[in-house]
Amino acid sequence: MNQAETAAGAPADRILVRYRIEADPARIEARAAALALEQSVEMPAGAITDPALRAAVPGRVERIAPLPGEPDQASAFEVDISLATATVGGEPGQLLNMLFGNCSLQADVRLLDARLPAALLAALPGPAFGIAGLRAACGAGERPLSCTALKPQGMTPAALAELAGRFARAGIDIIKDDHGIAQQAVAPFEARVPAVQRAIDAANRATGGRTIYAPNLSGGPGRLAGQLRIARASGVGALLACPMVLGVPVFAELLRGEAGMPLIAHPALAGTAIAPALLLGRLFRAFGADASIFPNHGGRFGYSRATCEAIATAAREPLGAMPPAMPVPAGGMRVDRVDEMLALFGPDTMLLIGGNLLEAGDELDARAGAFAARVREAGKEAGRIGS
Amino acid sequence: MNQAETAAGAPADRILVRYRIEADPARIEARAAALALEQSVEMPAGAITDPALRAAVPGRVERIAPLPGEPDQASAFEVDISLATATVGGEPGQLLNMLFGNCSLQADVRLLDARLPAALLAALPGPAFGIAGLRAACGAGERPLSCTALKPQGMTPAALAELAGRFARAGIDIIKDDHGIAQQAVAPFEARVPAVQRAIDAANRATGGRTIYAPNLSGGPGRLAGQLRIARASGVGALLACPMVLGVPVFAELLRGEAGMPLIAHPALAGTAIAPALLLGRLFRAFGADASIFPNHGGRFGYSRATCEAIATAAREPLGAMPPAMPVPAGGMRVDRVDEMLALFGPDTMLLIGGNLLEAGDELDARAGAFAARVREAGKEAGRIGS
Repeated sequence: MNQAETAAGAPADRILVRYRIEADPARIEARAAALALEQSVEMPAGAITDPALRAAVPGRVERIAPLPGEPDQASAFEVDISLATATVGGEPGQLLNMLFGNCSLQADVRLLDARLPAALLAALPGPAFGIAGLRAACGAGERPLSCTALKPQGMTPAALAELAGRFARAGIDIIKDDHGIAQQAVAPFEARVPAVQRAIDAANRATGGRTIYAPNLSGGPGRLAGQLRIARASGVGALLACPMVLGVPVFAELLRGEAGMPLIAHPALAGTAIAPALLLGRLFRAFGADASIFPNHGGRFGYSRATCEAIATAAREPLGAMPPAMPVPAGGMRVDRVDEMLALFGPDTMLLIGGNLLEAGDELDARAGAFAARVREAGKEAGRIGS
Repeated sequence: MNQAETAAGAPADRILVRYRIEADPARIEARAAALALEQSVEMPAGAITDPALRAAVPGRVERIAPLPGEPDQASAFEVDISLATATVGGEPGQLLNMLFGNCSLQADVRLLDARLPAALLAALPGPAFGIAGLRAACGAGERPLSCTALKPQGMTPAALAELAGRFARAGIDIIKDDHGIAQQAVAPFEARVPAVQRAIDAANRATGGRTIYAPNLSGGPGRLAGQLRIARASGVGALLACPMVLGVPVFAELLRGEAGMPLIAHPALAGTAIAPALLLGRLFRAFGADASIFPNHGGRFGYSRATCEAIATAAREPLGAMPPAMPVPAGGMRVDRVDEMLALFGPDTMLLIGGNLLEAGDELDARAGAFAARVREAGKEAGRIGS
């Protein structure tokens, strides 16, 4: 099921949600019916006294099909359940709650997909900048972008700034904080962000480049509001945030609403029970991410190539009136994989390579420069590569 | 490992974290070492140029032991990794990020436990009210508390208020919103909360009781701030919130800091990859929960009795200077299980029964009254029951 697919039996006022349930075939119908109630009214339907409410609000099982090709295929099912759109109230957090709140605690259930009706999409913010806005922020045309990370956590602002200056002189488009860099005493936001931005500004003046910095946000709403002020005052060009750590309501309301610059979402704490294409692709985008980082196949994480392609599709396919978001394959990527990744993901992609640049040692500047140049050059070949 | 246990090799400036890793025995050492880096510096240790940083900041494997009694025991290991306390910066969200941010995306890793050093505990808020404060809010002495839920979602404010009045007249201590009741158009917070509170106030005046209401918070920080104002103006006595939906930084900073009344945490979206005793017991408490709802064994969820006992222990055991939080077994509980639950969990417990009261139909008032009375009466026997 992709977002555009129209499912039989799911009218426009329902969200069609697809789960994977492990159950004995003799019990799958009862299990699916219990899940439909668990994710909506949380009580026996027969105990609902208002007939209009009983007809409209409980989740409904729309389809049950065995999942072929599963290791335990005799007992794994794909189950479509429709939920009343009105139960979401247009809130990103409540959408996650309806899709997977209680059943996240049940080991036999995974969330595979969800088709969001137009009325709900219209209530969600979506990207403010999207792929085009992210490209514009770093002065790039219709080409892929290069991205690297300042790491490790524990570095001083001066050391981070020095490293950022080297990456900027190498011509990398976006330099982000490692997502593990937060409000540590050695390099608090108010110290490191102006220092890093100054180093990047100096490099840009020297090279004529347009490298931008994306510092990592952390903390509660009061602290985040202060970080937004510092980021704007320092002239940074984008922001990094972990929606599942900060909370998706904060991401969608405070950051999407008030940042005024592109948001790059990081998948920390996103778990394995929600399909990555749905969460990191469609939902993070619907909540306001202009770019979404995910662990590419063949790195330090176990995502398959098909999963990664599905994330990229969900980030870019038609979704209400929302602009596309930029998929960002990452997680142990190497410069020698740039061509292969661009062939797979195409030009509407940002490549993130971190550790592989740092482990070059004395060759760091050369390797970073080669990475940036290869990505930039690929834009000229964009008509000939990938999807 | 419980919070009090001192682990060999883990000095006070390290958080000792226990993971379960599935790996081939020949590869477990390499896998554990990779996890220690993934959850800290996110790069090869050899590529860290600053020797002081390289010595202090990367995660360290402290212990690897095979897990006996696992179905696949040949390939499941308990791995203790220590992380530098300084990398957390005293932030609740960053703590979750360090413990389980990236590796939440890896299917071979589960988070079993974490021992939080005193310096970190001192930086986290903990419960503002705790068990004693929650009892005081509803005028109860040293006895267990009764709790029920207003449901289903989709009810109007008038219908919710009518139901709340009945539960209050029955003598139930705390009436909470179902966690699926959010900012829906049929009953937005500003309409339902004053209406429900008025009904409970009227019932309290009639009975001389002290029932309190805990409405469910939802949305981003701006919306939450408005809900806090309405809740205070309406005179509600407690609040319900889902930390994993709202974001733990919001829970710990905005709600714990500004609510001014007890917070009841709901486990929605908490998943299955973090041990419930750690997340719902120790961490939610450390982030400011005065009570923590969890799915009790034998209901609609799969937690074992041992898991439930471990949650209750983590919520109440010594934890820095923090007061104990109240464990709240729930999730398909029935009035005929009250004695058994109190025998297991003891008097420092709140019992939450929702659907089983509603499905009583015409007997709702009688069953709710019997539930409240049995819990209240159990207080008089507190010396004779349970732990």
